[in-house]
Amino acid sequence: MAAEPVWSVDPRTGKPREQVAVEATAEEVDRAVRSAHATREALADRVARAAFLRTAADLLDGAGEQIAEAADAETALGPVRLGGELARTTAQLRAFADVVEEGSFLDVRIDLPDPGATPPRPDLRRWKIPLGVVAVYAASNFPLAFSVPGGDTASALAAGCPVVVKAHPDHPATSELCASLLRRAAVKAGLPEDVVVLVHGFDAGVELVRHPLVSAAGFTGSIRGGRALFDAAAARPVPIPFHGELGSLNPVVITPAAAGERAEEIGGGLAGSMTLGAGQFCTKPGFVLAPRGEDGDRFLAALTAAVSETEPSVMLDHRMRDAFVAGVAERAALTGVRSAVTPGAGGEHTVSAGVLHVDADRLAGGAHPLLLEECFGPVTVVARYASREEVSAVLGLLPGNLTATLHIATEAAGDPDAASLLAELTPLAGRVLVNGWPTGVAVAPAQHHGGPYPATTSTSTSVGATAIERWLRPVTYQSTPDHLLPPELRDGNPLDVPRR
Amino acid sequence: MAAEPVWSVDPRTGKPREQVAVEATAEEVDRAVRSAHATREALADRVARAAFLRTAADLLDGAGEQIAEAADAETALGPVRLGGELARTTAQLRAFADVVEEGSFLDVRIDLPDPGATPPRPDLRRWKIPLGVVAVYAASNFPLAFSVPGGDTASALAAGCPVVVKAHPDHPATSELCASLLRRAAVKAGLPEDVVVLVHGFDAGVELVRHPLVSAAGFTGSIRGGRALFDAAAARPVPIPFHGELGSLNPVVITPAAAGERAEEIGGGLAGSMTLGAGQFCTKPGFVLAPRGEDGDRFLAALTAAVSETEPSVMLDHRMRDAFVAGVAERAALTGVRSAVTPGAGGEHTVSAGVLHVDADRLAGGAHPLLLEECFGPVTVVARYASREEVSAVLGLLPGNLTATLHIATEAAGDPDAASLLAELTPLAGRVLVNGWPTGVAVAPAQHHGGPYPATTSTSTSVGATAIERWLRPVTYQSTPDHLLPPELRDGNPLDVPRR
Repeated sequence: MAAEPVWSVDPRTGKPREQVAVEATAEEVDRAVRSAHATREALADRVARAAFLRTAADLLDGAGEQIAEAADAETALGPVRLGGELARTTAQLRAFADVVEEGSFLDVRIDLPDPGATPPRPDLRRWKIPLGVVAVYAASNFPLAFSVPGGDTASALAAGCPVVVKAHPDHPATSELCASLLRRAAVKAGLPEDVVVLVHGFDAGVELVRHPLVSAAGFTGSIRGGRALFDAAAARPVPIPFHGELGSLNPVVITPAAAGERAEEIGGGLAGSMTLGAGQFCTKPGFVLAPRGEDGDRFLAALTAAVSETEPSVMLDHRMRDAFVAGVAERAALTGVRSAVTPGAGGEHTVSAGVLHVDADRLAGGAHPLLLEECFGPVTVVARYASREEVSAVLGLLPGNLTATLHIATEAAGDPDAASLLAELTPLAGRVLVNGWPTGVAVAPAQHHGGPYPATTSTSTSVGATAIERWLRPVTYQSTPDHLLPPELRDGNPLDVPRR
Repeated sequence: MAAEPVWSVDPRTGKPREQVAVEATAEEVDRAVRSAHATREALADRVARAAFLRTAADLLDGAGEQIAEAADAETALGPVRLGGELARTTAQLRAFADVVEEGSFLDVRIDLPDPGATPPRPDLRRWKIPLGVVAVYAASNFPLAFSVPGGDTASALAAGCPVVVKAHPDHPATSELCASLLRRAAVKAGLPEDVVVLVHGFDAGVELVRHPLVSAAGFTGSIRGGRALFDAAAARPVPIPFHGELGSLNPVVITPAAAGERAEEIGGGLAGSMTLGAGQFCTKPGFVLAPRGEDGDRFLAALTAAVSETEPSVMLDHRMRDAFVAGVAERAALTGVRSAVTPGAGGEHTVSAGVLHVDADRLAGGAHPLLLEECFGPVTVVARYASREEVSAVLGLLPGNLTATLHIATEAAGDPDAASLLAELTPLAGRVLVNGWPTGVAVAPAQHHGGPYPATTSTSTSVGATAIERWLRPVTYQSTPDHLLPPELRDGNPLDVPRR
């Protein structure tokens, strides 16, 4: 059978640019996993690991222009956004190098023996060890920060897990370029290049999650694709953890008092957030509960005006563009759904942002569940409510989300709906915002990027230092002679790691 | 349809003692979950939660004699063991009360705003919130410590999650008694009694894991039962975390140097560990790699002598007894398998402990995978090896385990096989012991009770304070006015919880 070619495609024209690889066969996936698996011992060296992550960041920064050019040609995300994304990506690699060196992630706990305890306590020394080879499924919408050199890869490598990345078909050339830089960095740091291996192809992705030597998976993408891989991970003879970020509606609730206070500001802010990056952020606000009446009308008018002025934009690929055009048409055709700005096809290769609106009581009655599903791209659905009860009824129908946003009055008198709505939004999301917009995810210790299913398939975060915890498991050594223990667990703490 | 009666049965005679309940129908499971779900807000009060856990411990201790009597009549585990198990159970409840009050488990992290950061950092305040109703599947072999008032229940309640327990059919009367004490303790602490609800019946257990308002599950039991429930949890429209402890072979490797040094001591120690509690511990050493030759013969002779002297014992129920008798017969009938002490039926209601042995090279060649599966009850399989390579070959075939044990020489000269074997055993288990026995799990911060599948279905522990992490998820509040935040996240830290 002839190998399936992998083409880099220009989303601005829909035309193939160049063939950059071929899809991996089952045998090639097996070889990729085995060669990555063979690097585990080398990767156990924390000093080399930290050096590798820093070298990778340096090499990526050094090739910044070339990377941004390659990524822009494949994704149309633009050099500014891509430059920022690369900076975030390399900062993340360096941050994980610090994490590796600092050693808290090993979570070392030592209990000295206590023969007098009931039951008697032996010498117990616990730390965390890497799970093994991690499969990383790259995201379409972040060709760097959530792809080959992104957060899943950085955190898995930091944990000591070799990585096999399944490239996203929207940016195979960028993936090849980044993978070659990561592999070169490994060699420079004295590690085997196969600590990171890249494969292409849908079938290769399925083979990967089923491979007996793959111990965990990280995924960013659609609900359909992510759920299929999650199911495959759970159905294995030996199930493995599957940390997937699948999809999120990111609801927004605007109280009557907020609309009364600043309808125009909220409408303009929402327009900016929902159209940012052609609406292709996982945190795009896709569903808004706004009051009926005059204040709500002013909000919708401001939103309409701002979205109307948006230029048509290029989506990541033509499949997504076609799905967006079909998705908004299907939603707009539902009974009672009106278009404030009609979303849909822009030019031959672009899309136009838009706003749909509907009466909330229709949704509360169970109609149009499609409107409560994410539509990837620059569209949001505004549901106009007549009462507080309608808001609760609709919120009760929502799936899990990465974010939930509440707009309340900022006046000193307070907003009578604020506390109860915050309590209703908290169970729906991993991040709850007040008077802000969910796009733009700050990297900080208190950040959480995750949420109830389908936002994520686990309770972990894919952003920030604690993302490393996904790829580790505890092991306790009992009554083990000092010289046989890893140095991190020995008497005297020769490597000076944080211990309890 | 008539309700199926639930009988308490005497394992010493196989005779029903009394009908204590009826199996829950689907409607009753639904009612149980909904009534538990309705207590979430009340359970959010940490002060009441801690008081409840302490009151529960007091009431259980106060009814200690009655509980031990009820449990012994149903399980034949004996009053001494059951008294110890109750002490462990109530100590655990009190320890979790301390955890609730201390507040570290909330994992509070606060980032003050930094408009100068790239990207600008808003005010972010993260903590962990309870997942919701937890389904707990009680264990047969620990009617208290891993059942109605056990670790899963205690840690879930401590996290703020209401619990629906599916009772184990081996001790329904004990389950009813403990549940009524827990529910009474809730009321005494000002909480609704339905923070803990008990259901009986196999079908009820299946309904439970599928119920939309159940958010997570904890399980201790067999691989077959646990895997079926794990699969059901993963196949839900909204999958939920399933923390199961399913089964473990608990391999032991004895080096030639160890056998040379103290064959008799090791043989005697193993006999004690494998027959303890009628071999019904999840950490029972069920598979032993021992050298061929004279030293190995001395070990086997000592093991044989000690096991031969063991009295027949009563297992937890007749189904288990019959499974043990059939399981050892099937193993003993395999080509090349010999009995050092023939395990099997003791009297009409008892079993006899035994030891099977086989040449390791037969297993290394792929024969008799059955010998590498747990056989619940007082039996162990000794595989005699002729070379270090055979040891590695057999270890490479083993599934995941709670424990792995290495016996090495204690002489000053050291043991040439120690380091490499420790490295080979570490990937196989969650706890690695040197020159000890795995039965008896000390409760200590450095303890880990878990291991690669099928030992557990997740990387978490079911013993110790960190067991609480299984029932929580992070939520970050962004730019939220102070008065709307939970007190634990407010400026000035009014409740004085540990924060970062």
